[in-house]
Amino acid sequence: MPRKSKTCTSSSTLEAAVPALEIASGVIDELVAANHILFDQGVVDGFGHVSVRHPTASDRFLLARSVAPALATAADIMEFGLDGNPLDARGRTVYLERFIHSEIYRARPDAGAVVHSHSPAVVPFSVVSDAPLRAIWHLGGILGEGCPVFEIRAAAGPGTDLLIRDRALGAALAKSLGRGSVVLMRGHGCTVVGSTVRHAVFNAVYTEISAALQSAAMRLGAVTYLNREEAEAAAACNAAQIDRSWELWRMRAERRLQPQT
Amino acid sequence: MPRKSKTCTSSSTLEAAVPALEIASGVIDELVAANHILFDQGVVDGFGHVSVRHPTASDRFLLARSVAPALATAADIMEFGLDGNPLDARGRTVYLERFIHSEIYRARPDAGAVVHSHSPAVVPFSVVSDAPLRAIWHLGGILGEGCPVFEIRAAAGPGTDLLIRDRALGAALAKSLGRGSVVLMRGHGCTVVGSTVRHAVFNAVYTEISAALQSAAMRLGAVTYLNREEAEAAAACNAAQIDRSWELWRMRAERRLQPQT
Amino acid sequence: MPRKSKTCTSSSTLEAAVPALEIASGVIDELVAANHILFDQGVVDGFGHVSVRHPTASDRFLLARSVAPALATAADIMEFGLDGNPLDARGRTVYLERFIHSEIYRARPDAGAVVHSHSPAVVPFSVVSDAPLRAIWHLGGILGEGCPVFEIRAAAGPGTDLLIRDRALGAALAKSLGRGSVVLMRGHGCTVVGSTVRHAVFNAVYTEISAALQSAAMRLGAVTYLNREEAEAAAACNAAQIDRSWELWRMRAERRLQPQT
Amino acid sequence: MPRKSKTCTSSSTLEAAVPALEIASGVIDELVAANHILFDQGVVDGFGHVSVRHPTASDRFLLARSVAPALATAADIMEFGLDGNPLDARGRTVYLERFIHSEIYRARPDAGAVVHSHSPAVVPFSVVSDAPLRAIWHLGGILGEGCPVFEIRAAAGPGTDLLIRDRALGAALAKSLGRGSVVLMRGHGCTVVGSTVRHAVFNAVYTEISAALQSAAMRLGAVTYLNREEAEAAAACNAAQIDRSWELWRMRAERRLQPQT
Repeated sequence: MPRKSKTCTSSSTLEAAVPALEIASGVIDELVAANHILFDQGVVDGFGHVSVRHPTASDRFLLARSVAPALATAADIMEFGLDGNPLDARGRTVYLERFIHSEIYRARPDAGAVVHSHSPAVVPFSVVSDAPLRAIWHLGGILGEGCPVFEIRAAAGPGTDLLIRDRALGAALAKSLGRGSVVLMRGHGCTVVGSTVRHAVFNAVYTEISAALQSAAMRLGAVTYLNREEAEAAAACNAAQIDRSWELWRMRAERRLQPQT
Repeated sequence: MPRKSKTCTSSSTLEAAVPALEIASGVIDELVAANHILFDQGVVDGFGHVSVRHPTASDRFLLARSVAPALATAADIMEFGLDGNPLDARGRTVYLERFIHSEIYRARPDAGAVVHSHSPAVVPFSVVSDAPLRAIWHLGGILGEGCPVFEIRAAAGPGTDLLIRDRALGAALAKSLGRGSVVLMRGHGCTVVGSTVRHAVFNAVYTEISAALQSAAMRLGAVTYLNREEAEAAAACNAAQIDRSWELWRMRAERRLQPQT
Repeated sequence: MPRKSKTCTSSSTLEAAVPALEIASGVIDELVAANHILFDQGVVDGFGHVSVRHPTASDRFLLARSVAPALATAADIMEFGLDGNPLDARGRTVYLERFIHSEIYRARPDAGAVVHSHSPAVVPFSVVSDAPLRAIWHLGGILGEGCPVFEIRAAAGPGTDLLIRDRALGAALAKSLGRGSVVLMRGHGCTVVGSTVRHAVFNAVYTEISAALQSAAMRLGAVTYLNREEAEAAAACNAAQIDRSWELWRMRAERRLQPQT
Repeated sequence: MPRKSKTCTSSSTLEAAVPALEIASGVIDELVAANHILFDQGVVDGFGHVSVRHPTASDRFLLARSVAPALATAADIMEFGLDGNPLDARGRTVYLERFIHSEIYRARPDAGAVVHSHSPAVVPFSVVSDAPLRAIWHLGGILGEGCPVFEIRAAAGPGTDLLIRDRALGAALAKSLGRGSVVLMRGHGCTVVGSTVRHAVFNAVYTEISAALQSAAMRLGAVTYLNREEAEAAAACNAAQIDRSWELWRMRAERRLQPQT
């Protein structure tokens, strides 16, 4: 049954403005860079979003206004509470699916950053139930022995538009995610977490690449996947190597997205 | 049997010039941008075209002269009547397949813009009869439970060059399209409609992306598609989110197509 | 058995210089542009070459010295006789496989230009004998009901390096090509002809694109190919539309290959 | 069993500095270019590395500090001994997997350069045991009748992070490589050798391209591979053609990686 009374336009809210807490400018810069990198690396297109938990208030998070990630600037970054409502909207419209972020921050105290995307190599795995996305190489260690797939029909019936439009759907998604790093969303995309913005971006980029590799490998024959121990050991090692990729990706994104004068 | 007396060169016509109606410059700009975006997003190459219904005369439409879309400028935009003839050619040659546009505007009063392309991920679906292109994710909502495929052999016999060269073929194609948004053309490409230029471009870009995703998913195993309710709800929601993509695509196309000085 | 006494370095020859005939500068420019376009469109990489029959001496042809096509300039264009020997080498080294060109010009008076490449989507079709490359859409009309595959083992035994190193191999390849436009070369690539440089480039680019589409379509299910009449009608029509693509490709290649100052 | 006491951060060592031998600046330049080319050609991303044996001391080799190859500069190039330890670290951190290089130089006197990568088209072949990567075309001649796959479980048990973290693992990998040019590493990537930097880079780039072609061909049907004689003859010929590709790749990498002013 279709869900009623939903809005299809991004909307600003009527919340009274709450004074923003001081945030070191590096945090905002990092989040803006994450937006650009995710686009430049092919994880997001005009849609998708990345947030970071507030550095000094664990019950808040930072997320851009409703804008294509490639175009996000510092002025677009907004503060939200864990109910998904903006604290200081100042007329800026918000992403319909901000509840993905708020409910994951609520359910997962260890999550420092969240990426939601329609990662193109991942989407096919979201719609084929007997092809779980799992660790096929060391850089996909976080995928472990298989990622859960969130089926929105189980949470909200067979007639939704597949979007995470409210807190209940966000909570159901967070429950599917469980203690893992990646949850696929049937017919939609995936959501990836990390301890920091860089970690979440790293995880999102390598989830996309890993999905493409697994798809290619499955066409060649029976695949030897990483076992649980290998996947965990590899994931731990990757987490210590993130800056090497980040430096590269940031340079690339800045060069390719900046205006050419 | 081969169809006789056809021309293989683009041709200007002998029509007497009809004075053009005033058109707000924004309409032309938008159509030129659409040409560039469709190229930059990989929907068209040297071939393919996009038109918009005239903003004040519903029995006219605007379409570029016979030029690669990436190279189209405001001076290339021409007015046509619903018989497919240019109203003010001034020596400019016209696309052979302009009848795709004229007959769809005739059959579909709700169509505000039309894109014809050889969308590379879509063409394979046009030649495999047991693999209908359908909604595999929310951004492909307009594909619904499957797109029709226009078989030109049914309309004009087994010996054509596959092009929509006259009004009768245009009308047959429009009939195949029916009330939908997308019709595939066997061994040729597809045609996509929308209520506005932005909507038609959005639909064309996501038809291409959706086809690539479906192709990848079908290689993994049995696919769970969106049901009719989901597809309709998603399509309605997408239609309200178009500007976010448009801003991004326009910026990208302008940057990558403009001369580097 | 391996063929003996072959050279693996490109070699200049000892031929006495033959005075070059006047050539309109447009011919050289066009051939240089063809080199750049074939690289920019992904048909050639560091290897591959394109030639044109001499505009005023049908027993000569023009071909670059041994250089990556993307880097070719007017100064690199050399004249050759139909024995494959350069007429005015001036110390420039020549392509090992120039006999592809000379023997096709000899066997095919209608051939005005020849492209040899390792076209990446075509190579797989060269090594799978039950998957003939054929016309799957109108822009692949020249592929007709299937392209021949040249098996060098039939001409020179099972121990060659697969290259067309002499006149005999060139003649054998030309024989495989027959009256068609495209011949695949097993484990190697393909050779494509056209009436002009633009026509040969057009044919080479769309052979590459068509191969990719056919490969994708075959993975979806049973394919409806163009029949002979359709393929011929489409090929004839395409031949009249080449300039539209050429303008686009030339602009793209010039922009992307020129030094950025 | 997981291997204990491993580090997951790149580490500098406590080695006493050993005076560097004079090295012609061309050697360093070539190695820096190799780093950039491997990135630009899609063989490496933020990870992967390329080394060259010291031109005057065969028991030393040159390798960048722990940095994304695209960002490597002359100041990043370090000297190592064949125990994998840096001779003059000066605070620069080193790649965890430098033992790949040291042990191959130790086992293979003919190896003048080594590339380790997560070459994306190759990884799938590393995890499918009944799909050996082998020569499908002349430019893949070095792959011969099939490449060995290094299974780290055989050398270090089922609980590693898949990395070559010490001399013993490096030696086991070198043993798998044998006398060949390419060894795949299960769930990880591959390592490719050559007689010079240019040769190793050429081999690495065409191993990646060949893997993509083989994957595409296997989807079309039964493949005719090069036989041993053909593969050897082709490999010998390719080795004499490297400079043509190198010039092109170097120009491309320099243009695309240099800052745009």
